[in-house]
Amino acid sequence: MAAQSPDLARIIARLAADMAHEPQRGRVADYIPALARADADRFGIAVLTADGQMHVGGDADHGFSIQSISKVFTLTMALNRIGARLWQRVGREPSGSAFNSIVQLEHEQGLPRNPFINAGAIVVSDVILAGQTAAAATAEILDYLRMLAGDPAIAIDAEVAASEAETGHRNAALASYIKSCGRLDHAVADVLQVYFGQCAITMSCRQLARAGHYLMAGGRGPHGEVLVPPDRARRINALMLTCGHYDGSGEFAYRVGIPGKSGVGGGILAVVPGRASIAVWSPGLNARGSSMIGSLALERLAEAMGWSVFAA
Amino acid sequence: MAAQSPDLARIIARLAADMAHEPQRGRVADYIPALARADADRFGIAVLTADGQMHVGGDADHGFSIQSISKVFTLTMALNRIGARLWQRVGREPSGSAFNSIVQLEHEQGLPRNPFINAGAIVVSDVILAGQTAAAATAEILDYLRMLAGDPAIAIDAEVAASEAETGHRNAALASYIKSCGRLDHAVADVLQVYFGQCAITMSCRQLARAGHYLMAGGRGPHGEVLVPPDRARRINALMLTCGHYDGSGEFAYRVGIPGKSGVGGGILAVVPGRASIAVWSPGLNARGSSMIGSLALERLAEAMGWSVFAA
Amino acid sequence: MAAQSPDLARIIARLAADMAHEPQRGRVADYIPALARADADRFGIAVLTADGQMHVGGDADHGFSIQSISKVFTLTMALNRIGARLWQRVGREPSGSAFNSIVQLEHEQGLPRNPFINAGAIVVSDVILAGQTAAAATAEILDYLRMLAGDPAIAIDAEVAASEAETGHRNAALASYIKSCGRLDHAVADVLQVYFGQCAITMSCRQLARAGHYLMAGGRGPHGEVLVPPDRARRINALMLTCGHYDGSGEFAYRVGIPGKSGVGGGILAVVPGRASIAVWSPGLNARGSSMIGSLALERLAEAMGWSVFAA
Amino acid sequence: MAAQSPDLARIIARLAADMAHEPQRGRVADYIPALARADADRFGIAVLTADGQMHVGGDADHGFSIQSISKVFTLTMALNRIGARLWQRVGREPSGSAFNSIVQLEHEQGLPRNPFINAGAIVVSDVILAGQTAAAATAEILDYLRMLAGDPAIAIDAEVAASEAETGHRNAALASYIKSCGRLDHAVADVLQVYFGQCAITMSCRQLARAGHYLMAGGRGPHGEVLVPPDRARRINALMLTCGHYDGSGEFAYRVGIPGKSGVGGGILAVVPGRASIAVWSPGLNARGSSMIGSLALERLAEAMGWSVFAA
Repeated sequence: MAAQSPDLARIIARLAADMAHEPQRGRVADYIPALARADADRFGIAVLTADGQMHVGGDADHGFSIQSISKVFTLTMALNRIGARLWQRVGREPSGSAFNSIVQLEHEQGLPRNPFINAGAIVVSDVILAGQTAAAATAEILDYLRMLAGDPAIAIDAEVAASEAETGHRNAALASYIKSCGRLDHAVADVLQVYFGQCAITMSCRQLARAGHYLMAGGRGPHGEVLVPPDRARRINALMLTCGHYDGSGEFAYRVGIPGKSGVGGGILAVVPGRASIAVWSPGLNARGSSMIGSLALERLAEAMGWSVFAA
Repeated sequence: MAAQSPDLARIIARLAADMAHEPQRGRVADYIPALARADADRFGIAVLTADGQMHVGGDADHGFSIQSISKVFTLTMALNRIGARLWQRVGREPSGSAFNSIVQLEHEQGLPRNPFINAGAIVVSDVILAGQTAAAATAEILDYLRMLAGDPAIAIDAEVAASEAETGHRNAALASYIKSCGRLDHAVADVLQVYFGQCAITMSCRQLARAGHYLMAGGRGPHGEVLVPPDRARRINALMLTCGHYDGSGEFAYRVGIPGKSGVGGGILAVVPGRASIAVWSPGLNARGSSMIGSLALERLAEAMGWSVFAA
Repeated sequence: MAAQSPDLARIIARLAADMAHEPQRGRVADYIPALARADADRFGIAVLTADGQMHVGGDADHGFSIQSISKVFTLTMALNRIGARLWQRVGREPSGSAFNSIVQLEHEQGLPRNPFINAGAIVVSDVILAGQTAAAATAEILDYLRMLAGDPAIAIDAEVAASEAETGHRNAALASYIKSCGRLDHAVADVLQVYFGQCAITMSCRQLARAGHYLMAGGRGPHGEVLVPPDRARRINALMLTCGHYDGSGEFAYRVGIPGKSGVGGGILAVVPGRASIAVWSPGLNARGSSMIGSLALERLAEAMGWSVFAA
Repeated sequence: MAAQSPDLARIIARLAADMAHEPQRGRVADYIPALARADADRFGIAVLTADGQMHVGGDADHGFSIQSISKVFTLTMALNRIGARLWQRVGREPSGSAFNSIVQLEHEQGLPRNPFINAGAIVVSDVILAGQTAAAATAEILDYLRMLAGDPAIAIDAEVAASEAETGHRNAALASYIKSCGRLDHAVADVLQVYFGQCAITMSCRQLARAGHYLMAGGRGPHGEVLVPPDRARRINALMLTCGHYDGSGEFAYRVGIPGKSGVGGGILAVVPGRASIAVWSPGLNARGSSMIGSLALERLAEAMGWSVFAA
């Protein structure tokens, strides 16, 4: 593989320019005021390559609500805590359903299909809660993100967290249902507090790309430190590819071809194993709840760089 | 990447030896006599690498019923025929359901989730039927496989085809349902004849690995000839990864990490983009209907060779 | 109970006049030409009371396709044949689903919820097929209807039967699904022939009201002959009330309050235990597939006569 | 109709004796301690006939938790409050599902199928909450029951109410789900307080039979006072028949043939329009969650008295 950085810088600059003019930008999530205020014209991208170079474009330093992207990191934390025992509490299969569907839970007795749908992430929150208060668990998640991104300034947006808690009846339904199946160890209110807290973390593309370094680099952080074993990084990538975009996961694999996890704040974390950790952000969403412009940018970037994991 | 062939030959020999002694071999499919007679002790493997070398182990030249592996090739044929219009008739998402589920069809008005579940492959058969008889369409599929594998001796097992037709009430239900939604152009009986015919093709691991060359090689066949455009090969690989093992697709991606398509005859075709086309065979199936020993062999091979597309 | 006949004659005459002017008449079934030609302005009613008097109004002697009303009579025949063993093959619960839903079949392994949804009636057809050809079974059903109605001229509309067979892919899906679960003894094609044949019987309101006499009269026919035991008549009435209008059964019970069975030809057979056997017909259907004007007429008649089984 | 009382007294005495020796008594609900302590050997019956006579047998004066039987009375209260507008918030169809299923809610956007499944009763609680606190609404329900039964001593079992609240995660999931669809006006916690309160009311068979008088008597109470209009009583009876036993409603209609509503405390309220209001109690439940001995007693009583609404 040829040195990629010069081309990459040019490609990213071009992408950022192009994305600014794309007419179809999707719909900004409007279920809470803090998200509804986001500007659909925004677009940011940050690409951290295996050689340690960071390339950015557009609003790469603008903070946004990472929302479900946090599920990648809490999954990592839960696996670090209890290893493969996690898979007795949550599955590893695509759900074929929307992110907040409860039908699958009833058909499968409260065992969520995978850790990237809301129900699965709620179980992951319950794992992280073990032995501590909801406040402590939330702080632990925040600290983990700060460590991964190398930025102690990363914070939870209190307004977002409060709004999520206020309007989160669907998530309360999911958590209560799982609890009713005897599959949550802690009180529903505590589990939800942790879950809503992690969703309300604000990060920029630059911070997020850096936080994803270990997934691209066989489990190692930017300084070569071992964060997770290589096979754990590899398997989280596999889960991101098959389950990272709810019922749009197949489409993303088909079009883009790299592991990714989206959030309704408009961010997407994407991983090119051995090559790059990428974060994009644009608040307008497609019908599946993933960033419309962000997905397009990743498709073009992967195409231009030959980064699809499915390409020869 | 270092020259892989010497190691590969040794690894394959070791794998074949190890697989012979694995105690847990799964259950042979018994819904038709021809499959039920298969010997669960069998194991074959063939690996065709990008440099054109073929490595084999075990019963690599023993013919078996390819069953659903044929869906990869008929999908290729349908895309070659009508291109992206195919996606108006079948989706690209994992179904989260068993291979023969009809529930999803009712909830989504007869639009199958993807071309690798039975319902989707039935629609693909309908596409191939256009402008010809069922016999001609079946012959066209067989010819395509013969061409891909470079072996004009490949044939349909008439006993298997007849048994499939006789016992295929679930597939008849799927086809009739799709027809009732106005989503089949041809008569149900004709579509099923094509579908049952393709499932009854007999191939060996060696033939299958060769037939899969284009998926590993950016669309090119063993002699460098362009069979499909590179992006088509890439996208078929993506579909194999997200949907290739029904409701065990996530598990296969998690454990093995390469695109693959299994059949109830015990075969699996797997693709390492840019590296290798692999076929394994062992008739005993796991709970999801994929070869138990075949899956294990692929997991060990991918691990040993570092072939997971999700590894750094 | 006071002599009801004088009032009844007047009420029926008034009803027939009123129904002629109702503006909202529903939509005529159009899935086959013979039904699509029906005139939505038509309305017929026939009421046979316990004292043997027949009162008619409107187009009471106009023949129409009885369609699913036939399910009441084939259920009676199947119970006469194999008694309570029938309930090992079909349930007795409302389905909560549309008449042709296949979802429930998958969730309950091919056991239809009740004999009045299509899937259940297909199983009933299979029971009647035992020991005879499809033609003979169809003839037996026709003969039973002729006997019940006391009219040997009742016939199957060959055009309707042929159209049903031609377009009946959904029913073929249901039958194939049940067969795939090992729950049909005979070939799908034979079972469907019987099923389509019974649906294509043409009867008038007068004939139908007479055929329903045994349900109103504790199992006895118009001449006092025992056709079924009293408890069988009672139980069939119960099934009609809970399951007779698919996912509109609760609504019919709520509004009308008497056992009834509707057909997409626009007919409804209704039973007031101990009082009357009623047939109404008007081809326009409501959203649940029952006659809109026919339901309204029954509601008004039951109200006027105090015939609801739920009234004090 | 002949004078029924002498026979009835004898039949009830015989029933109570027979029921004491029935070997198959079902399983006592054990999800909360207060219910789990119930003695499966108990059986009580009270029959209040249209002429005002009360006949009792067995433990007719033993209090038990009425649980879901309360849904009949809260439905009556909600209809008295807002009339037919209630049907914009809850359906009138049998659900075909278990009492606590959430699948239907997702498929139908949070509109419960009927007021007798938990989801529907939760909506009814929300209606009763309008304009008052949860404590006031609960008191209003209790007062209504006291008035209907003519017994100011009827009370809520505080232990049961507390246990329900503690373990009621499934109901919390249902309420949260409905709330997430925008279909609850009040806070989930308040709605659940009302719901759990009504379920925890303790009554005896004698009290319950008296409370059901208006349903048997065209809306009039024991002293002839109009409690609801006749058509309301009739329609509530219709709903009890089609929906009163969850996914065992069809079976109850088939076997017993009268409107009834069961509770997991082992009570059943049954109504013979124009004839009798009946309450039975025995704590052991069948697979559908209705009293096993209670159902059997009602079947025998209806048979002996010819009380099925479906009999000639």
